[in-house]
Amino acid sequence: MPESWVNLAERIGSDLYLELSGPGSRRAVLIRALRDAVREGLLAPGTRLPPYRSLAADLGLARNTVADAYAELVAEGWLTARQGSGTRVAEGAAPPPRARKPKPAPVPPIPHPHNLRQGVPEAASFPRTAWLAAARRSLGAAPDEVFGPGDPRGRIELRRALTDYLTRVRGVRVDPERIVVCSGFAHALRLLFDGSRGAGGAGGATLHGPFAVESYGLRFHTDILEGSGVRTVPLDLDEQGALVEQLAEEPRLRGVLLTPAHQFPTGGPLHPARRAAVIDWARTSDGLVVEDDYDGEFRYDRVPVGAVQGLDPERVVYLGSVSKSPSPAVRVGWMVLPVRLVDSVLAAKGTRESSVSVLDQLTLADFITSGQYDRHIRRMRQRYRLRRDRLVTALAEQAPHIAATGVAAGLHAVLRLPPGTEASAVKAASWQGIALDGLAGFRHPRASMPARDGLVIGYSTPAEHAYGAAVEALLRALPPSTADSPTSRP
Amino acid sequence: MPESWVNLAERIGSDLYLELSGPGSRRAVLIRALRDAVREGLLAPGTRLPPYRSLAADLGLARNTVADAYAELVAEGWLTARQGSGTRVAEGAAPPPRARKPKPAPVPPIPHPHNLRQGVPEAASFPRTAWLAAARRSLGAAPDEVFGPGDPRGRIELRRALTDYLTRVRGVRVDPERIVVCSGFAHALRLLFDGSRGAGGAGGATLHGPFAVESYGLRFHTDILEGSGVRTVPLDLDEQGALVEQLAEEPRLRGVLLTPAHQFPTGGPLHPARRAAVIDWARTSDGLVVEDDYDGEFRYDRVPVGAVQGLDPERVVYLGSVSKSPSPAVRVGWMVLPVRLVDSVLAAKGTRESSVSVLDQLTLADFITSGQYDRHIRRMRQRYRLRRDRLVTALAEQAPHIAATGVAAGLHAVLRLPPGTEASAVKAASWQGIALDGLAGFRHPRASMPARDGLVIGYSTPAEHAYGAAVEALLRALPPSTADSPTSRP
Repeated sequence: MPESWVNLAERIGSDLYLELSGPGSRRAVLIRALRDAVREGLLAPGTRLPPYRSLAADLGLARNTVADAYAELVAEGWLTARQGSGTRVAEGAAPPPRARKPKPAPVPPIPHPHNLRQGVPEAASFPRTAWLAAARRSLGAAPDEVFGPGDPRGRIELRRALTDYLTRVRGVRVDPERIVVCSGFAHALRLLFDGSRGAGGAGGATLHGPFAVESYGLRFHTDILEGSGVRTVPLDLDEQGALVEQLAEEPRLRGVLLTPAHQFPTGGPLHPARRAAVIDWARTSDGLVVEDDYDGEFRYDRVPVGAVQGLDPERVVYLGSVSKSPSPAVRVGWMVLPVRLVDSVLAAKGTRESSVSVLDQLTLADFITSGQYDRHIRRMRQRYRLRRDRLVTALAEQAPHIAATGVAAGLHAVLRLPPGTEASAVKAASWQGIALDGLAGFRHPRASMPARDGLVIGYSTPAEHAYGAAVEALLRALPPSTADSPTSRP
Repeated sequence: MPESWVNLAERIGSDLYLELSGPGSRRAVLIRALRDAVREGLLAPGTRLPPYRSLAADLGLARNTVADAYAELVAEGWLTARQGSGTRVAEGAAPPPRARKPKPAPVPPIPHPHNLRQGVPEAASFPRTAWLAAARRSLGAAPDEVFGPGDPRGRIELRRALTDYLTRVRGVRVDPERIVVCSGFAHALRLLFDGSRGAGGAGGATLHGPFAVESYGLRFHTDILEGSGVRTVPLDLDEQGALVEQLAEEPRLRGVLLTPAHQFPTGGPLHPARRAAVIDWARTSDGLVVEDDYDGEFRYDRVPVGAVQGLDPERVVYLGSVSKSPSPAVRVGWMVLPVRLVDSVLAAKGTRESSVSVLDQLTLADFITSGQYDRHIRRMRQRYRLRRDRLVTALAEQAPHIAATGVAAGLHAVLRLPPGTEASAVKAASWQGIALDGLAGFRHPRASMPARDGLVIGYSTPAEHAYGAAVEALLRALPPSTADSPTSRP
């Protein structure tokens, strides 16, 4: 049992004395040192501490300082004090027997120097200066109430800016009252479908039942639906987009999730007749269309195709975000909702939680209204178009047997491959140091349409200086034209 | 049928001509005007449009411009083009019959000039200059990869800064690998308990079953648990906090949600023996302690009571956020997790979603490491302490029969009232123009302990200049000392 400072100091084995002579509250330093000593097992449970008077004298501290430190550690449960028995290390304060080392985060198995995975904008192109200027302006102009509890629908400044922008650029029929700001597409899906688990009001009931999705799409979207107890039903795709006439074949369908402006990942807009047909279906069967407008602004051949939502805002939930522009680091997305769904989405969101950084919301509102958002999109559209052109030209020159599809819009292309060759092409790309995905990873597990073979090339992903090398590596990885025949498969 | 520009212009009835002569793409302006005309019913379904050559001549536009506009509107489904029949307004493009006006957001029934609702820091005290400086520094220093897809655990810079801070100030046993950054307390609860619905891995299984909560607490926390299918079991409270010995009476309990540093809302820290006891219970029954450290830094009488998590980090989930300091407008919170729960929480969070603004995360990391966070808390602690003192002094002088409890820490006090007088006191306060809550709104619906009557006074909420008037109004609203007898009830 340590009865003097010397013993205690030996057990603590730290530079407590040095710390005590430095700046800062001596009481706080002493508390920390004693707590650490107990934690690390240097002071075993049951160990009696020296009387506070002795320790104070040994350390040259005021008695109150040590007494306070003991009292605090008793209050925290590290020490116990009992009349006649002195102050001891508490029994419960022993370090837990099985302190496991945390697992490090999973890392990709092979580091790939060339990243052609789809889905992210060029990180280096983030408009730091313009964004910071917008942050400074909006933070300076914000009324104090901004820093209080937020409106769960999102700041009115942002909802007004989005109303103007989406009307002008995407043909959305919108007013601020039907916008709910969220942290991104996945959050939006959760808000929509969490309401379907009964607790959420009217909208929940509307969405209770199976939901159609495209046979190729982002698997994590269907995972979110299935995780919310919603069975997903895959629609076949052809060159004109999803075969929406199949909706009528499944009588209990509650809705359909579509990428009308640019089918993800195969490319191409939904055919006009099908745009009208899906709205007709929604009207006659009381269904809901969820429109994922993930890269609607990035169209290279003509004016972007407007949103399907414009055809009937009471039948379509329109979803967008800043993930493609300017960056997924800004966690802001938006839902344009049929009026009947606003309340249930807000109920799912929680009235106490604004969820999304209010500072980012104000900054984005300023970024849009000041014209910086349009400017950034124009700049990036020009840059991505050049990248697309480089890819298409290089393929035409050096691999003319490979067709690049879905290139009229977006941030990615699909290189079509002969049936059965995709897996080996992905492997060959990996050997060339390229990270990319084949179409197989986007296929719905219950899709019945014939599988397509292809590589999904995210040409926005690499840094500008790295793009040329990535395309060259890709060309080396592609199967030679003799591979067209299935007999060349291993 | 409008066959000429004059007819069409009449039907559109807009200043299309003026717009066309201004800057911007004439094609885009024409598309928008035609789309609006169809939407608003000015051009009825089936209406035939003038041949594009005539319209181009009438408007002084290139033929291609008008042809492109028609083609775009056909692609969007507003118009149909058939050989021999010309271009017509599509049938599906009719405005929906029941365009309902969105409901405005609910507003509080009476506007209260004095806001003494608990839960929010003084909005005007947000450190705008220091925050913006931290944003500028961190945005300037950030590597490009910051703007790519984020780590779902949160930025390492923030997890390191939190590790240092929570170790130093709250006695938390933490390393960056067991921190998951989230958007706030409600998000943290959802991440924990969403995992319990089966789909989420190991942690889900651990939390499957009833969960104990304090008999008084924030109702929206228990609502989140119940919404996730978790039955909540209320623990009685006394002056030493929750009666954790009741945990043993419910054999299937999976865990307990506590506010150990400062019981919310009744005030007071959990007694040291109970801190040790709850850890003992968790160890012997394989239970989980969820520690809500919502205002742990704001203690006025002595060094803050350290976190219970420090006693056994494998048994406690420690939750904190910036909602009390600097502001709920910054949507950043943190979970310090037992190692075995990290993976299931990340699975519930979604590997594709960082959820929380990366820019805010970097700014907060800089704000902490540069010492601004400590400085802000010191400043606010001083300011809130003065407010608390004003309230306590005013009560002692003018309403000595009303005891203010739970005032040693936090941002709120509880004014105890004689049994049965709370509802009329809340009503009296409302008549004095004060927004505040009685204890009844925090009581668990299945609580079995005797009800307490009291007013919860959030003294951090008003602006500095408005605080004095709010306290004066409160004093006018309090029941006179003769109201001690229950016979004075109406």
